[in-house]
Amino acid sequence: MADITIGLHGGAGALPRDQLSEAEWAQARADMKAALLAGWKILRAGGTALDAVEACVIVLEDSPHFNAGHGAALNADGEHELDAAIMDGATFRAGALAGVRRIRNPISAARRLLEQDDTVLLGGAAGDAFAAGEGLAMVDPAYFTTERRVKALASLKARALAGTVAQASEGEKHGTVGAVARDSRGNLAAATSTGGFNNKPVGRIGDSPIIGAGTYAENGIAAVSGTGRGEVFIRRVAAHEVAARIRLGGAEIGKAAHGVIHDVLSPHGIGAGMIALGAAGDPVAPYNTLGMHRGWITTAGAIFAGSHEDMVAMGLAP
Amino acid sequence: MADITIGLHGGAGALPRDQLSEAEWAQARADMKAALLAGWKILRAGGTALDAVEACVIVLEDSPHFNAGHGAALNADGEHELDAAIMDGATFRAGALAGVRRIRNPISAARRLLEQDDTVLLGGAAGDAFAAGEGLAMVDPAYFTTERRVKALASLKARALAGTVAQASEGEKHGTVGAVARDSRGNLAAATSTGGFNNKPVGRIGDSPIIGAGTYAENGIAAVSGTGRGEVFIRRVAAHEVAARIRLGGAEIGKAAHGVIHDVLSPHGIGAGMIALGAAGDPVAPYNTLGMHRGWITTAGAIFAGSHEDMVAMGLAP
Repeated sequence: MADITIGLHGGAGALPRDQLSEAEWAQARADMKAALLAGWKILRAGGTALDAVEACVIVLEDSPHFNAGHGAALNADGEHELDAAIMDGATFRAGALAGVRRIRNPISAARRLLEQDDTVLLGGAAGDAFAAGEGLAMVDPAYFTTERRVKALASLKARALAGTVAQASEGEKHGTVGAVARDSRGNLAAATSTGGFNNKPVGRIGDSPIIGAGTYAENGIAAVSGTGRGEVFIRRVAAHEVAARIRLGGAEIGKAAHGVIHDVLSPHGIGAGMIALGAAGDPVAPYNTLGMHRGWITTAGAIFAGSHEDMVAMGLAP
Repeated sequence: MADITIGLHGGAGALPRDQLSEAEWAQARADMKAALLAGWKILRAGGTALDAVEACVIVLEDSPHFNAGHGAALNADGEHELDAAIMDGATFRAGALAGVRRIRNPISAARRLLEQDDTVLLGGAAGDAFAAGEGLAMVDPAYFTTERRVKALASLKARALAGTVAQASEGEKHGTVGAVARDSRGNLAAATSTGGFNNKPVGRIGDSPIIGAGTYAENGIAAVSGTGRGEVFIRRVAAHEVAARIRLGGAEIGKAAHGVIHDVLSPHGIGAGMIALGAAGDPVAPYNTLGMHRGWITTAGAIFAGSHEDMVAMGLAP
């Protein structure tokens, strides 16, 4: 029997500490805690890691404070194209969608695809049609739009004209949400959902829906969800690389995750983080950005959340 | 200095030997030889592995005998949605397209995306628009359609109604083309292009455009292009797993590639093959299907092609 645990990230695009108001941070932290507890409740009742990561990500998708679902980034046309994936480490089954526009909770559509045990990845309108056919909640794309993302898009378009995109904060550029969990039978699961990044090219598919790049789970080894510059995660097959370093290289989870972020991804430029979980023990959350929204509930039931270096203790889970 | 070499596959969906006419096989073999020589010519002149795999795959895309470009499979709506990817093992740069419909040579569009060094994966109409903007040859979708694929789609739809899809030949179900090469500086590259499989769900994205799943290259380690049931390649991150077994597990290329096909993929069902190349030596081409179109030019310049067990010697490369 493995100790249950759950971890999440809310994007490696945390704003610089001095730009993150105490009020915003408190709200984001409260939503992270709610997301963790949504998953924890399932795990405590003997439910699966797969159910737990889906429940956790739904809360983050519904929160306006994270770049997924409501609050998602806008592409260069000012529209939302959402990516999501979920993977069951017990069976290697996975479901993923790329570039969907009307599914309220893309992670639940990914889960339905996983359950079909056939197609893994659906792109564009076909993903929306699949979700509608499954009876999932569909929304007008305006549902996803928040004032912050509209401002961020305008700011990045202005920067693009001025040639100063590189100086944009990570908060303007990136962000994604993800969760990893281990259930009482030792099963691992991972889930990731994102709006991509502000001002992204229309049709661009990032790492979140790519199994092995931004999302991966393998029982007995690791569950990983990434955030940051998706192209680098794709090129270095980052999430699977963490698992390979454990299974084939004999590394433990902390060293494997840290090594992939700092030794593999950092040489391609700053902008990467992940939440990862091994076969035992608590989640690890390395990143090379200024900050990364993240949180977890330890095997002892202690809730933590953080945006920059230090983690805030948020009580014990029931 | 490494010995130059190039290898290709023309899909793990080779027809059963008794259904493959001598005339068809001779034509497919001639096109494979032409594809190999297109890449070899570049390598012999001191060109890059990246240029060689692109040139090789272009010939296969243009041939009606393979499921990529002209001759591509039809989806459930009777339309073509093409996937392709190319990766440079020297730089980990990659370009890929999913679900494009009008690019005569999707592999060249993937190559242009690679050169931009920004977006790795473009989906749907955005991929077509990118290629058109790059000045690549665009075609009416009817260009891709061949009589064989129209018949295969009708046959598979009939089988779907009769519940006998499982008895369809691999040739009706699968197929993809791919190439791997090593140039005189020891650089590795991989490229894959496909129409997916006959009667595939609209919007389904397979493993070919997924870096790490169906396509992967890493200098000093391996270049891999897969073919077969794409979903299994995605779930097991098959191409990157080959590289990881070499780099982290100390396996040599033959053992790594064989192990991934037979130990990792086969338990999920039959329908997988790959062409793979290590840091030195000749290509390897394991598969678990009845046959797989494949060919290579050895480091000694000998050309071989095969569809089932035995390889046919096709002379020496100039």
